[in-house]
Amino acid sequence: MRQWGGRFAQSPSEMMLSFSESLSYDKRLFSYDIAGSMAHVKMLERQGILSGEEAGTLLAGLKSVRSDFERGEIPQEKELEDIHTAVESSLRAKVGDLAGKVHTARSRNDQVALDMHLWCADAARELREAVRSLQRAFLDQAVANKTLVMPGYTHLQRAQPVLLAHHLLAYFFMLDRDAARFAGVVSSAAVSPLGAAALAGSTFPLDPASTARDLGLPAIYDNSMDAVSDRDFLLELCFACAAAMAHLSRLSEEVVLWTTPEFGYARLPDAVTTGSSIMPQKKNADCAELIRGRSGRVFGRLMGLLTTVKGLPMAYCRDLQEDKETVFESFDVTLACLGMASQMVSGLEWRAERLSEAASDWPLMATDVADFLARSGLPFRDAHKVVGGLVRYCGETGKSPTELSAGELSQLSPLLTPEVCAEMFDAKHSVGLRNHPMATGPASVEAQVKKAAEVLDRG
Amino acid sequence: MRQWGGRFAQSPSEMMLSFSESLSYDKRLFSYDIAGSMAHVKMLERQGILSGEEAGTLLAGLKSVRSDFERGEIPQEKELEDIHTAVESSLRAKVGDLAGKVHTARSRNDQVALDMHLWCADAARELREAVRSLQRAFLDQAVANKTLVMPGYTHLQRAQPVLLAHHLLAYFFMLDRDAARFAGVVSSAAVSPLGAAALAGSTFPLDPASTARDLGLPAIYDNSMDAVSDRDFLLELCFACAAAMAHLSRLSEEVVLWTTPEFGYARLPDAVTTGSSIMPQKKNADCAELIRGRSGRVFGRLMGLLTTVKGLPMAYCRDLQEDKETVFESFDVTLACLGMASQMVSGLEWRAERLSEAASDWPLMATDVADFLARSGLPFRDAHKVVGGLVRYCGETGKSPTELSAGELSQLSPLLTPEVCAEMFDAKHSVGLRNHPMATGPASVEAQVKKAAEVLDRG
Amino acid sequence: MRQWGGRFAQSPSEMMLSFSESLSYDKRLFSYDIAGSMAHVKMLERQGILSGEEAGTLLAGLKSVRSDFERGEIPQEKELEDIHTAVESSLRAKVGDLAGKVHTARSRNDQVALDMHLWCADAARELREAVRSLQRAFLDQAVANKTLVMPGYTHLQRAQPVLLAHHLLAYFFMLDRDAARFAGVVSSAAVSPLGAAALAGSTFPLDPASTARDLGLPAIYDNSMDAVSDRDFLLELCFACAAAMAHLSRLSEEVVLWTTPEFGYARLPDAVTTGSSIMPQKKNADCAELIRGRSGRVFGRLMGLLTTVKGLPMAYCRDLQEDKETVFESFDVTLACLGMASQMVSGLEWRAERLSEAASDWPLMATDVADFLARSGLPFRDAHKVVGGLVRYCGETGKSPTELSAGELSQLSPLLTPEVCAEMFDAKHSVGLRNHPMATGPASVEAQVKKAAEVLDRG
Amino acid sequence: MRQWGGRFAQSPSEMMLSFSESLSYDKRLFSYDIAGSMAHVKMLERQGILSGEEAGTLLAGLKSVRSDFERGEIPQEKELEDIHTAVESSLRAKVGDLAGKVHTARSRNDQVALDMHLWCADAARELREAVRSLQRAFLDQAVANKTLVMPGYTHLQRAQPVLLAHHLLAYFFMLDRDAARFAGVVSSAAVSPLGAAALAGSTFPLDPASTARDLGLPAIYDNSMDAVSDRDFLLELCFACAAAMAHLSRLSEEVVLWTTPEFGYARLPDAVTTGSSIMPQKKNADCAELIRGRSGRVFGRLMGLLTTVKGLPMAYCRDLQEDKETVFESFDVTLACLGMASQMVSGLEWRAERLSEAASDWPLMATDVADFLARSGLPFRDAHKVVGGLVRYCGETGKSPTELSAGELSQLSPLLTPEVCAEMFDAKHSVGLRNHPMATGPASVEAQVKKAAEVLDRG
Repeated sequence: MRQWGGRFAQSPSEMMLSFSESLSYDKRLFSYDIAGSMAHVKMLERQGILSGEEAGTLLAGLKSVRSDFERGEIPQEKELEDIHTAVESSLRAKVGDLAGKVHTARSRNDQVALDMHLWCADAARELREAVRSLQRAFLDQAVANKTLVMPGYTHLQRAQPVLLAHHLLAYFFMLDRDAARFAGVVSSAAVSPLGAAALAGSTFPLDPASTARDLGLPAIYDNSMDAVSDRDFLLELCFACAAAMAHLSRLSEEVVLWTTPEFGYARLPDAVTTGSSIMPQKKNADCAELIRGRSGRVFGRLMGLLTTVKGLPMAYCRDLQEDKETVFESFDVTLACLGMASQMVSGLEWRAERLSEAASDWPLMATDVADFLARSGLPFRDAHKVVGGLVRYCGETGKSPTELSAGELSQLSPLLTPEVCAEMFDAKHSVGLRNHPMATGPASVEAQVKKAAEVLDRG
Repeated sequence: MRQWGGRFAQSPSEMMLSFSESLSYDKRLFSYDIAGSMAHVKMLERQGILSGEEAGTLLAGLKSVRSDFERGEIPQEKELEDIHTAVESSLRAKVGDLAGKVHTARSRNDQVALDMHLWCADAARELREAVRSLQRAFLDQAVANKTLVMPGYTHLQRAQPVLLAHHLLAYFFMLDRDAARFAGVVSSAAVSPLGAAALAGSTFPLDPASTARDLGLPAIYDNSMDAVSDRDFLLELCFACAAAMAHLSRLSEEVVLWTTPEFGYARLPDAVTTGSSIMPQKKNADCAELIRGRSGRVFGRLMGLLTTVKGLPMAYCRDLQEDKETVFESFDVTLACLGMASQMVSGLEWRAERLSEAASDWPLMATDVADFLARSGLPFRDAHKVVGGLVRYCGETGKSPTELSAGELSQLSPLLTPEVCAEMFDAKHSVGLRNHPMATGPASVEAQVKKAAEVLDRG
Repeated sequence: MRQWGGRFAQSPSEMMLSFSESLSYDKRLFSYDIAGSMAHVKMLERQGILSGEEAGTLLAGLKSVRSDFERGEIPQEKELEDIHTAVESSLRAKVGDLAGKVHTARSRNDQVALDMHLWCADAARELREAVRSLQRAFLDQAVANKTLVMPGYTHLQRAQPVLLAHHLLAYFFMLDRDAARFAGVVSSAAVSPLGAAALAGSTFPLDPASTARDLGLPAIYDNSMDAVSDRDFLLELCFACAAAMAHLSRLSEEVVLWTTPEFGYARLPDAVTTGSSIMPQKKNADCAELIRGRSGRVFGRLMGLLTTVKGLPMAYCRDLQEDKETVFESFDVTLACLGMASQMVSGLEWRAERLSEAASDWPLMATDVADFLARSGLPFRDAHKVVGGLVRYCGETGKSPTELSAGELSQLSPLLTPEVCAEMFDAKHSVGLRNHPMATGPASVEAQVKKAAEVLDRG
Repeated sequence: MRQWGGRFAQSPSEMMLSFSESLSYDKRLFSYDIAGSMAHVKMLERQGILSGEEAGTLLAGLKSVRSDFERGEIPQEKELEDIHTAVESSLRAKVGDLAGKVHTARSRNDQVALDMHLWCADAARELREAVRSLQRAFLDQAVANKTLVMPGYTHLQRAQPVLLAHHLLAYFFMLDRDAARFAGVVSSAAVSPLGAAALAGSTFPLDPASTARDLGLPAIYDNSMDAVSDRDFLLELCFACAAAMAHLSRLSEEVVLWTTPEFGYARLPDAVTTGSSIMPQKKNADCAELIRGRSGRVFGRLMGLLTTVKGLPMAYCRDLQEDKETVFESFDVTLACLGMASQMVSGLEWRAERLSEAASDWPLMATDVADFLARSGLPFRDAHKVVGGLVRYCGETGKSPTELSAGELSQLSPLLTPEVCAEMFDAKHSVGLRNHPMATGPASVEAQVKKAAEVLDRG
């Protein structure tokens, strides 16, 4: 039961059928497809294009088809081509030829576009929820570990002490941009193309805005040709997924590092690690590696969709069918990775003594001493040089600054004394010095925690 | 005059200097860098970290450096490494060692991030303006050609007649999403990272929000580690450019098609075409081809930046320097293509007779007849089949429907008569039948023109 | 039955199991996995590590497992994690604990690498075969249409007449590079990593070269760490697929164009086209559009794999698991598209009169006239200008060159006469003038046909 | 002096000129362009199309132009459009209108293709040389550090001891595939398109094979349309660059890790590191980070070129101009990164005691014990479990295996004794056990060194 063919003398070849069918993967759209058909039927009735009786029969039939499909009874014959035809075919089995009237004033072009809009809005909502869960995992960890100090890194070299909670909250706020992007995708997707028909609209007196309202979509397209050929909302979804995966890849890299014996900052529970088939001692952060590796797949999908839409003339071209497997994988992978990341972050056990010991590495406080010198009146560039000399002197003599004599210190700068060194070369003290907004000090972190909690409260 | 080195016994190698310098391309950031330094100095003064006199001298010096740089007097020595050092070096030449105090409570990590934020916001604003210009070109063409009918295409096969203005307005509304995306990038970029220093904030009592206000940025980062390592706003710019280029590639494809002798729908002015070095008759739509070809470069840049940020641990890593050439090319190419596209669209001369003749191709009205039959009570699927038979019969007999006799027609369906065919197989009539919102009919197009004008009026 | 876990107090979480399992997609590797195990067992026996009896039992067991799997009886439990464990688990059911000895001196790291090498070599061979079939389709079409003339295009503007066979053979030779690339991938893949074990080789006295020989692989890796972490051969496969898809996308674009009413150069059989659910007259080149659209998916997969391997430290990282779905889709899509393209190309019916008429468009012969003038002594640049003037004059007067009087012609150049024009403005004559190697003339095309046939004969 | 325009009433707009010119970047092709012209002139003379005198004058003129250009005297006017016109314009200044005869029987389509072929072959040769240099750096380091033991990693967890030389040679052999790929690109590029003219060949009796020979190119295209539209060789170059950068990104990741205080395996000389503008103690592996970051740019360029060629109809389209900046950056970045990597690798100073201490971490020898048990008759899976239990027992008791009593050991397995443990838990002993081909043992590494030296000797 193809939806076309009156003029065709010959059927599609076996190969063509297999090559062009989408039912095997677009069947996951069935609930959106049926919701769209139901809204369309109601509008046709409101506009006097279908009678009340016709509409009633069709709606009952569509509900019944939906029940069947929800129970998994979706026809699989590739001759059905796509979910739209599969639904109509099942409807025909229930209500007879009247089923054909569902397609009045509609084309598969606007129908499939509608399905994808509805799916995309839901997908983006679900992804946003998953981001929120991961944010909560970070906030919980931050709150549970408010006083732990660790080395902050730049260039993967120890730079300055930070609160672990501060480090974790960096991810919280990074992820907040993902939540915002997914919310943006919901808005972009929530525009109805139904009524565009093949590309030019219909000769029937349609009311597209009312169909949209019925489906919970606040807006309709302004132009029917744009409506059937636009895939921007899917590009935006793919991009938002790619950006989120970039973030998760960064987190994963850190989890891999933190759980090495060399860093030794954290342990992962057995539940999210795996062992080796040959090395009995191994405990690998596979969850993190798999997330990091999957970022490639999601980046590639974005690239793929951009390439697919490149250079397509107006309006609908069949190339656009290739949007589906692309966005479905972007969504599935990103959602799974967000979930896995939540479990991974929640499961991290911090090795407080290792973190603290590493944070106490004296060169981490070098900037503080430079700042102290600058506060004492030295231009910062000169202060920087003094401390550079101190670092070098300590390196050459194998001593730490707190081991230097007053004489040694005064040769570097008259402002340096053993007392100053004793005070400055302390990680907690260092962190405590940074309390302006956005900094790593306890007051600033407390403010971040408060803001983060508010973000989650707003949902 | 490097900004570091106190502890280094050896200078960077020649190769390392060339490999790592960014001055050759980040010099275009100088005005943002100086603006950031001036705002930073003012904040330092407000917070009592610099004296009024120091601040005054520094601000005067920075202004003077800016004047020099605006005149093109930017130092080029690669030992200067980057624009930040080049500015400070020039400042030092003017105000002496006091110049070092500009860098109090600041790192190049937050400094370069700020520069990129300021640049990105301006870049996105400029791109949005260029989109608006191109939208205006489309609207002007639509208004100037309101009554022309052309074939609408799907699968690059003639589908149904549309108004040329409708086709052009499809691009207007497509581009409106680009304008929205660029506006979104402006918002994303308008967040100040200054105050994050290297990654942990400063030991000085900074007021980052006031610096941000001074720079016209409505918000600051919540977390300093996020502030120095975030490049999301640049990813968003690259994506918005890629999406816009995808749109322009579609337009370009159509312009190439329209100006072939086979389609023959439009001519381009000599000013935007080129000839051949060997074939004297050629007049090629090079402007369109170059735009289409450049979409690849912009897509690739997005991919490149995603790859660069993949897997980076917190906080700043030098890999992030690679954002610059990437986003600069994305911006430059997209801006140039938008400008070229405006000139190209404005220059299109329509070949009315060709458009109209093609639109009158009778099969384009086949859907209308099917709709007519459906309105007369036939289920749409059956109506579709009747018309499929009509198409096939005409194909076999070599006649058009208006040439069929009443007898021939009635064999296909009792509802088909010569009168019906005479009325239905007319392109203008066909277009006129589609007047619901978003459709191609004159009333709908008039409404689109009105809305488009309002969009442009809002700016 | 996981292959590890002795030291683990806790099992993987449900989520972790689902997230990390690969059995659902790597089960297609089973025959390679079993072949690898059989070769490994034989080598272990040869080296005296397994007894003859042990080896015999294991080989019989593996054969039996292979039979089961070939009948589709592959276990599906996700606790089995991957195909390697699934095979060993099934083997254990047949031969008991002896099954554990298959894994002597082997790790999943070198095992999975071997599976992918074997799969990749076969995949590349199969793709090369499919390219050859498509080349044959082009050659058959070229041979069947040796005398048809059509316009050759540059910039999608008519440039010069060419033989249709010449145009088709351009694809033949383009595809020959794909065949060469796939052959190259076969070579790259045919290197055995078995013996690398986890990363360092084994403490057993292995003979990796003999295992390789047994598997038909001519070489082994030189270094075990490289062996387990190398995915270059898969990158090469993805690239070769992407390049092939780029070629197919170009062909598809042309098929779409040729089958428009505007070009009207060819018809596709019903068997590879589809119709519209709303427009009864439509006959769309969906096969071509789907191929073109799928190029995006294959490009994206290459990008994805590059991203996945970026920045991975030595040796094996779990990220590499993500190679599989990526290369499987690259392969599946490319193979299907090559097959579809063969059917599409074979099915093309040429509209000889349209091709010929279009080729006779007089400006297509403009270069020939310029060449004639150059041969008569004019510098080519000047000849080009004369003919440019002729084109313009004809454009302004609405005449074709053969309609110009001797007087009109002589004003443009004393070398131009009506006789010259009559001879030169003929498409077949034009084509016949180009007979040097690689050119479009009949003799050159005949030579190309001969060479193409030889290429196919060599297989 | 454009190469066309006879029929054009209007000049290109300012914007169009800037938008379409390529001279600003294709001027680097001048020596190839002139070499191509000289070979073309000689062939024209051989074929009797130019007189000996004409040819002599043109060749002298071209040589003179080349000298000017080599001194940097390349005209910059964007009206010249491209390097081809710039060369001809300069030639015209020297030899007058005769210059126009250089373009006899040639189009810019085959001319630019030839330039890119010649450039690409040279570029690939240069890249191969740079790979060879980097391989030498690895080999030198391996030879200089033959006995150092370090932990081999999988999943970035310590797995088994390996020789540092083995780890370094993994890169040697990885890079050998890059050398092979670049050699392959040289072959792919060394095919001459000259003679294809615009797309169809010329009406002059050309001898393309002789021109090719004169240029050192062993082959010509079989088909002129393929010749002008093929960019496969550039795609291959971009891919080979991307694959090489993927390798360098892996190396860079490891260098970053090795030079952290946490790993502490190596130091980089000051000459390739940089410091911090704010943290005086920092010494960052910027060289490695920049290489890693640049991988993104090179990956993106490959993607960009694939996208650009997607869907282009035959034969030449102007989109193809976009190949140049793309491949130039791929080449420049990859070459610079290979050079930087050589300096970086040569500069690595190994911290022997740290490597050795880390390699002696007892769990690294766990596999050896499992192998020992397997050799003693236990099925490997069971041996694995025994050692898993040992690992767990040691973890729980805080003892190392060499601290366990005979009684404790025998409870885990009767085969475990203190003597066995004393022998097995030694890193050098462990490495020494792995001496089959490709493994990490000294004999195997010696064989690798020998083979590597032979590879370099062959050049």
